[in-house]
Parts: sequence; C-alpha cells; structure tokens
Amino acid sequence: MFSEKLTLAKSIREQRPLVLNITNFVTMDFIANGLLALGASPIMSLAREELAELITIANTVVINIGTITPEFFALAREAAKLANQHQKPWVLDPVGAGASQLRTQASRELAHDYQPHIICGNASEIMATAGRDITARGVDNASSVEHALDAAHSLTSRTKTTVVISGAEDVILDNARTSKYTGGSSIMPSITGTGCLLTAVCAAFTSVAEDAFTAGCVAVEFYNHCAEQAALRAQLPGSFKVALIDAMAGFSA
Amino acid sequence: MFSEKLTLAKSIREQRPLVLNITNFVTMDFIANGLLALGASPIMSLAREELAELITIANTVVINIGTITPEFFALAREAAKLANQHQKPWVLDPVGAGASQLRTQASRELAHDYQPHIICGNASEIMATAGRDITARGVDNASSVEHALDAAHSLTSRTKTTVVISGAEDVILDNARTSKYTGGSSIMPSITGTGCLLTAVCAAFTSVAEDAFTAGCVAVEFYNHCAEQAALRAQLPGSFKVALIDAMAGFSA
Amino acid sequence: MFSEKLTLAKSIREQRPLVLNITNFVTMDFIANGLLALGASPIMSLAREELAELITIANTVVINIGTITPEFFALAREAAKLANQHQKPWVLDPVGAGASQLRTQASRELAHDYQPHIICGNASEIMATAGRDITARGVDNASSVEHALDAAHSLTSRTKTTVVISGAEDVILDNARTSKYTGGSSIMPSITGTGCLLTAVCAAFTSVAEDAFTAGCVAVEFYNHCAEQAALRAQLPGSFKVALIDAMAGFSA
Repeated sequence: MFSEKLTLAKSIREQRPLVLNITNFVTMDFIANGLLALGASPIMSLAREELAELITIANTVVINIGTITPEFFALAREAAKLANQHQKPWVLDPVGAGASQLRTQASRELAHDYQPHIICGNASEIMATAGRDITARGVDNASSVEHALDAAHSLTSRTKTTVVISGAEDVILDNARTSKYTGGSSIMPSITGTGCLLTAVCAAFTSVAEDAFTAGCVAVEFYNHCAEQAALRAQLPGSFKVALIDAMAGFSA
Repeated sequence: MFSEKLTLAKSIREQRPLVLNITNFVTMDFIANGLLALGASPIMSLAREELAELITIANTVVINIGTITPEFFALAREAAKLANQHQKPWVLDPVGAGASQLRTQASRELAHDYQPHIICGNASEIMATAGRDITARGVDNASSVEHALDAAHSLTSRTKTTVVISGAEDVILDNARTSKYTGGSSIMPSITGTGCLLTAVCAAFTSVAEDAFTAGCVAVEFYNHCAEQAALRAQLPGSFKVALIDAMAGFSA
Repeated sequence: MFSEKLTLAKSIREQRPLVLNITNFVTMDFIANGLLALGASPIMSLAREELAELITIANTVVINIGTITPEFFALAREAAKLANQHQKPWVLDPVGAGASQLRTQASRELAHDYQPHIICGNASEIMATAGRDITARGVDNASSVEHALDAAHSLTSRTKTTVVISGAEDVILDNARTSKYTGGSSIMPSITGTGCLLTAVCAAFTSVAEDAFTAGCVAVEFYNHCAEQAALRAQLPGSFKVALIDAMAGFSA
C-alpha cells in the first residue's frame, strides 16, 4: 500500500489532473495551494455559464458546501449533474451538515440524487448526510467515528459511493470494503480547511486510482503521511499549515 | 488583569464558544484560523436561510462589512436582529466606514438601530460610524485615536455599546469607563485582517467575560500580548502572520 | 534600471497608493498582503454602489476575472469605465481566458473596449485575450511565451495597452518597445495567486512610474528580485509563499 501511495502520487505529478472546485469562500486559497503542492491543477468556479466547458476539460470535480446559499446549491446540483453526464468522478464535502437545514438538505440531496464517487466529511457530517438526527455545533465535529460507521454503511449501500470519515481515526468504506487508518496529526482540527483539503486530495486521486475506494484510501494515507512529516517540523497551527503544504510538495518515498 | 486575561482565555479553550461570522471575503481564512488558535469554534455563513438556526447554536456573532454589497447589508441586518432576539452578544467591525456611503450608512445603521455589544474599528471607522465627516482613504486608518475619542464617547452614550478603537494605542470605552493599552506590534497594520481578527477575538471573549467592556479589554490585552510574542520571532509580515497564529495557539501565562 | 526599481519602490512606500481590487475570491488575502508588503494600500470591493466613490480616491485599479460570473463581469465593466472616466490607470488580469467562453469573452471585451493600461497574464491567457484559439487547461499556462508574442503585439497595436506575459521568461511590450526578463523562481507556478499578485504589483507601480510600460518592467524586475530573495530562504511552496511576502516587505537595494 505504501508503494501504491507513492506510485499514484507520482501519477498525479505526471498527469497534473485538472480539479474543478465548486467550493466555499473560506478555504479556497488553502485548497488551491494544497492541490498545487500535490501536483494537481486547481480551478475554482462560481459561474453556471462555464460549468459545462470546465467539466469537459476537468479530470475530477469537488463540491464543498462550506458557505452554501440557495444559489450555490443550484450551482452545485448543476455541477454534479454535468459531472455525471460527462462521467467525471466527483467528490462531496458536506461541510456543516447537521448545523442547518440548508446544509443538511443539500448534503442529502447531493449524496442521494447525484451519486458522488466519494463523500468525505467528519463523523457528524456523515451522520447528518445519511439521514441521522444529530446535534451539530457548527462545522466542527461532535460525533465519534464509531457512531458514524453505521450511518456511513447505509449511505454506501444506498448510493454506491465511497465514504471517507475523517477524524483521529479515518475510516474509508464502500458497500464491500472497510479500511481504517490512524495517523496524521492532532493539530489538524486546529487549522481551518484541513478537512476541505483532504476532500480535494481524494478528488485528485480519483483521477489516477482504479476506483473510488482505492482513491480514498491512498488519499488518506498520503495526507496523514504529509501531516506527520509536517508535525516533525511544527507543533503550532500557523507554522503547521505552512509545513503541511511543504510536506505535500516535498513528498517522496 | 493579567490573571483575568489568562482565566478567560482558558475558559474559551474549555467552552469552545461557537462564533458565527457574517464577514468579508478577504480575511475569512485568517479569522477562522485565528479563532481556532484561540480555542473558539468558527463558522462562516452567507445564507439568510440558515441564520436563525446558526444563531440559536452560536455563542456570539461577528458582523464585518469589509466586502459589503446591498445583499450583504440585508444579511447583516437580519443577523443583528436575530442575535438581539436570541440575546446573543454581537460585535460590529465597520470596515472602511467613511470610504463609501454604502459602508458609512451600513455602519451607522447597524450601530444605532441594532445595538452591537462591541464596535471594533480603527479611528477613522469609529469616527465615520459615529457620524463624523472624515476623509477616509480606503480601509486603512487616516485619523488619530485622540480625534476618535470624542466620537466614540457619543457612540457609547447613544448606543450603550462598548467601543474598541484599535491603533498604536488601543482604547476601550463604554458610557462609564475608559481603558487604554499600548502594546502589540507596529507590524500589524502591514498584515490584512489583523483588525478583523481583533474584532473576532472580542466576540469570542464576550462569551466568557462578565460584560462587553471587560471582553474588549481582555481581548485587546490578549491580542497585543500574542502580537508581542510573535514579534519576538518574526519582523516581517509574512512570517509575522504565521507567528501570530502560533502565539495565539501557544498562549499560556 | 536597478536604481529605477529601487526609486519607484521607495515612492510607493512614501505615497502609499490606494489600489482598488475588483478581483477573485481565491487570492484576495494574498494580494492584499502582497500590496501591503510593497507599501501600497489595498481595498477590495464587490459593490457597484461604491465603485464611483472608491475609484475617485483610488490611485489605480485591478480587475481580475479569476472567479468571474455574469454579475462580476458587469461590475468589472463598470469599474473599467469609471477608471477611464476618472483617468485612473487600470490593469487587467484575464485569469483563465481560453478555459471558458465567459472568461474569454470578458477578457476580450475588457481589453478591447475599455483600454486597460496593462494586461498581465500567462501566455495562454494573453493569446486567448488577443483572439487566438487556444486549448486551455484551466487557469494554468499551456502555451509558450514565444507563441504568445505575436498575439501580444496585435493586442498592443489595437488597444494601446502594455502587455506583460508572465512565465519562466517575462516579456513586457507595448506598441513600440519590448523588454524581456529572466529571473524569479521556478517555484512560483506552484503557489496560487503569484500571477494575480504580479498584476497587482504592476498596478501599484503605474501610480509612480512615468508610463505603463515602465511600470510593467519595474514591477516584473521588482517581483522577480523578491522571488529570488525568497528562494534563498525557502524551496517549498508553503514556506516560499511566506518568504515572498517577507522579501517584498524587506526589499531594499
């Protein structure tokens, strides 16, 4: 698996997959820099008028609802529909699902009606997306991975998607397989966008991996490895964020 | 006072107050990371549809007009109204008041009709919000704190708010008390969002302090202390910005 | 030329030109911090209602279409019209021209109908703006500077603008002169917004240079010099980005 991680990361550097991001306003810069560090080519769009063209040239699409509005939700639906029409893998980050009806409904509709290849979120977000009633406190996680597992299974069986539950332990599962990883760094929840960037990394790996489950596993392994490297150099969040981008760019076996 | 700063900062870490940010697009990432470093839990929203739900679960609200449009102004009014209805403290950052009629009118209306617990801005912004005619040059300060003091006093007597005037000398005042602090770092005006982040820090402290005036004082003391710590490690703005987040996260007596 | 670079950079620090940015959501924070490091005073706006007032007090205007929508395009047209009416130099960054019809048409219309003082983009963007058919892959460059030269010449003769083609070799040309510079750092394409920031630096220099061509040349020289200084301290993109801001702020002969 370690060599697979290395091989696929090298493929990203060689192929420079174009990752179209329909995403929130908070972490756009961090996601773009993270994708560039990984070797991918990010583009951000907010315009329905250019979606069909951009999805045609994109290798993969990220939909992240972190600053959702009704207009953004319409844009996200159109992007998901076009991604499916053009057979481009797309990845959903249901940021804040459970914290408001708008976020919860958008996550459920995008997950169930538009069949993302991967859904990547924290335990609370996965539970809310799967239809569970949760007590969310904003965009931070308030549930354990254990509680989310059952919800995630129901999500994969209904939607044929791969689910990545990020947390102290990361779990990747589809309707047949489950993998768990510990690792990464406990500093990561202290930096905004570390979940958003994992989602974007998952998307990038879908363009080179044999299937969504493998992409999710390798993305988590790669990202945790880089976070561990960063934690060797920085123990506080400002410098850790810089070190994480450096580690992603400097990644080698 | 130093021990009070420490006690309240510890309370933020323990309680992880949810800070809802209705804020500008320039500094969202920096504000979110600063609030996380402080130990608070930030959420950003741009959707009127989720305001009532988010304000119900939020401990405090920031309204920052740094990239205001008429639509954003409507969102801000709604957020201020709901914060008051739900008795959640809210803090106004009148970014660029005085630079355009839209910014000036929005600041005045939000300050006078919606009674923020704290208004935090530079001298020019406070003067413009208080109804003074100023010659603003964009979002940077062009007035002295001395000139702003009289304007700030009129603002506190009319609105029962606490005013924080940020600058080389920071002044916190309400209709009965005035405190002044020197400290911080002269590098801060060279980094975008240092004023926005102080406003967000004030908001976080309202959730643990006994009143808005105390929250403003402790926020300024905490923030200046962190800036001084950062200045020990970095004298240029790129690395100072990283060091400031590190100092906020690493804060201890 | 080196002394001219130094003299004009000092003039920016002394005069603190107000740079109005009508720009994308991805790199706003980086551009604002870069302009502050240079000694300029940035303001970002998204509101048609305040454009006339802000352009009156601004020294120069940046229009960057990196996250364009039809509404943003309307805002950009209005900003360009007002900049011309008030005889303020303005600079166009045609981000992603060639990647979608919306971006291509906006770039062409803004370049031809509104006469920017400088158009600054990578080779693909300059070619698309000049009316060439290109195969763009998102916002990253896919063309050589050599191929873009002929397109750039046609653009300068029709629009009387200065064109800055950024790349491993940077070319600055107007309808009479051409300058080429090598330098900078090969890390720059790995950091989002390095092109956007060069455009903003060009804009800042228009406020102190004798003409747009000189502003473009000095901006490129200054920026490359700072990138070289940054590369002495950082070889990976996370820390390079921090070091670039530091180098811009610490610039001296």
